[in-house]
Amino acid sequence: MSFESFQPPVRTLMGPGPSDIHPRVLAAMGRPTIGHLDPAFIRMMEETKAMLQYAFQTQNAFTLPISAPASAGMETCFVNLVEPGDKVIVCVNGVFGLRMKENVERSSGVPIVVETPWGEAVDPNQVEETFKKNPDAKMLAFVHAETSTGAESDARTLVSVAHKHDAVTIVDAVTSLGGSPLKVDEWQLDAVYSGSQKCLSCTPGLSPVTMSERAVEKIKRRKNKVPSWFLDLNLVMGYWGSGKRAYHHTAPINPLYGLHEALVMLQEEGLENSWARHRKHHLALRAGLDAMGLQFYVKEAHRLPQLNAIVIPNGVDDAELRSRLLNEYNLEIGAGLGALAGKIVRIGLMGYSANVKNVLYCLAALEEVLGEMRMPVDKGAAERAAHKVMS
Amino acid sequence: MSFESFQPPVRTLMGPGPSDIHPRVLAAMGRPTIGHLDPAFIRMMEETKAMLQYAFQTQNAFTLPISAPASAGMETCFVNLVEPGDKVIVCVNGVFGLRMKENVERSSGVPIVVETPWGEAVDPNQVEETFKKNPDAKMLAFVHAETSTGAESDARTLVSVAHKHDAVTIVDAVTSLGGSPLKVDEWQLDAVYSGSQKCLSCTPGLSPVTMSERAVEKIKRRKNKVPSWFLDLNLVMGYWGSGKRAYHHTAPINPLYGLHEALVMLQEEGLENSWARHRKHHLALRAGLDAMGLQFYVKEAHRLPQLNAIVIPNGVDDAELRSRLLNEYNLEIGAGLGALAGKIVRIGLMGYSANVKNVLYCLAALEEVLGEMRMPVDKGAAERAAHKVMS
Repeated sequence: MSFESFQPPVRTLMGPGPSDIHPRVLAAMGRPTIGHLDPAFIRMMEETKAMLQYAFQTQNAFTLPISAPASAGMETCFVNLVEPGDKVIVCVNGVFGLRMKENVERSSGVPIVVETPWGEAVDPNQVEETFKKNPDAKMLAFVHAETSTGAESDARTLVSVAHKHDAVTIVDAVTSLGGSPLKVDEWQLDAVYSGSQKCLSCTPGLSPVTMSERAVEKIKRRKNKVPSWFLDLNLVMGYWGSGKRAYHHTAPINPLYGLHEALVMLQEEGLENSWARHRKHHLALRAGLDAMGLQFYVKEAHRLPQLNAIVIPNGVDDAELRSRLLNEYNLEIGAGLGALAGKIVRIGLMGYSANVKNVLYCLAALEEVLGEMRMPVDKGAAERAAHKVMS
Repeated sequence: MSFESFQPPVRTLMGPGPSDIHPRVLAAMGRPTIGHLDPAFIRMMEETKAMLQYAFQTQNAFTLPISAPASAGMETCFVNLVEPGDKVIVCVNGVFGLRMKENVERSSGVPIVVETPWGEAVDPNQVEETFKKNPDAKMLAFVHAETSTGAESDARTLVSVAHKHDAVTIVDAVTSLGGSPLKVDEWQLDAVYSGSQKCLSCTPGLSPVTMSERAVEKIKRRKNKVPSWFLDLNLVMGYWGSGKRAYHHTAPINPLYGLHEALVMLQEEGLENSWARHRKHHLALRAGLDAMGLQFYVKEAHRLPQLNAIVIPNGVDDAELRSRLLNEYNLEIGAGLGALAGKIVRIGLMGYSANVKNVLYCLAALEEVLGEMRMPVDKGAAERAAHKVMS
């Protein structure tokens, strides 16, 4: 056995995350490691919390990055909030809704599923009816931006329905944070989790989470200990909270440098400008895809700019398309997940990936590969259409 | 609010981890991110598994890094292996034994505690007696290398006791992996977890775990689902196992580059050479500390070379000592934890930190600061004593 240093290929990341990482963030990842209780590190943690509050648009004191990927952020919300026997209404309109249901079950809760066809937004009326049939439901869980389909649900309305029925809300904002409007305080979302590797353009491995007072109160009223020691927010806050820090676990120092740098960049750009940039490049990409005759899977009203689900044209082999883009163009786009495997591809425009170079490159590569696989296309038409939107 | 890029101070890390990181590992952390299902990344995962097998000295197919800090590696072992009502004999001789007990409880198991004074090794006879009193105990959990005290327990003997009683063993090897002998197959350890930031000298945030067939069989026989979705090894192995990879969570790409590089370096040096290097610098440090009249907390027979618990001399203020070392020398050493807070400091010689420069620098800084705080010391005597051992 004799292995050598790993030199990754340089890809263009336009899948559902990780997205391309800005050189400033990569540089931050390689800065000298310091201790997790070093006063300098603790100052950096305070800044990170403040910048996450800005990104989430919240004043929640309870706003911090969990030291693990977004799946663990999801689990943090469920394992802390769900008590054995709690009824939780779970909206399922894609893979991540299904994962929420799984989380409710593993936390010994009882999921009541509201099903919506994949690719559509969750229907608040259906949620309202489900609450009426289940007046003892304690929580509502839904995905704000479904990474598996690219559909956005109306978080503000769904939460208002839940609050009318005195339920606490758990919201998946993995793909929305930083890329499209997400207003935790204004919309009164309770427990919200996200990921570092989507529209924040940091490396994967951290999960920003924020909790409202309502959520924190529910956790404080728990009768039993949280089943997870690692994700127990009472303990996590002993380290991340204000005042004297108690050692809980050893924080992932360098990835947190990366997240800090990504948040500094978000602050420099401005959150609204970041949303607008995602939207602008989405419209350009859309114009190009339209010119190629490709169809979006999600109706325009619910389409997320940062995640574009495209129907695979008849006669085109999904795996061949993606592997040719990867091998010939070093371009990664995402496969369909679950029920949509083989039916759609997902083109991400997340964070640093939402730029003009990526849009034009992706369109040119698609024209070339699809042209060879399917039919001759008018080369350059897609880029021209995209340009028209951007200029 | 306007924050700037974080430029960490350059410290010398001689606490209980994180340890100093080699520039090669820091450089790897900043390489271009690629996707978690990229064929190039999957090849790197395979190499990482093979190199972890080497580090653990095992052929266990089930050997991989969990995508979170060592606390999550601990939880992975308990949450997968412990079923509701399972009796688990837990040896407590420091903070991490206590955390194991907490993990058993949160996994709905029943802990039977074998207590040993902190700083001593676990007594196999006491464990044997406890098994006789609890013939229905299903597992034995103990810490091989107690990070809170620097004491090593005899893993091979403890495991043989457990196996005589047909119990599966869970072993904390967070501080031993890479720094002192750990032979998973030869000693027949079952579930073993470690951390990236100790003697492997990678950044914190990953937890190498290995499982024997006996452990895997117990997990497969479970009647209920593993309570954690994120740490469910059945699912984790769908991504990390051989054959077709199924998406489970998004792996922390760049930290895994760092771990891969740290393991390449371990392989280049040779595991036995790494153990010998840790031991050599420990002996040098010891000679210097002896010359200063400082006392070790742990008896020589059970002392870990990589973690040196030193009794704080009378009249010396713990917090002042550590903060002067940090502020005047950029040198981090560790505080005592739990029952040993204020009574000991912990000097780590882990991974890349186990080098001659660090040993001499630490001794010189201690001479200076302790001399000013306590009494005039013979400046240079400690370094001369250390030199004699090293040459």
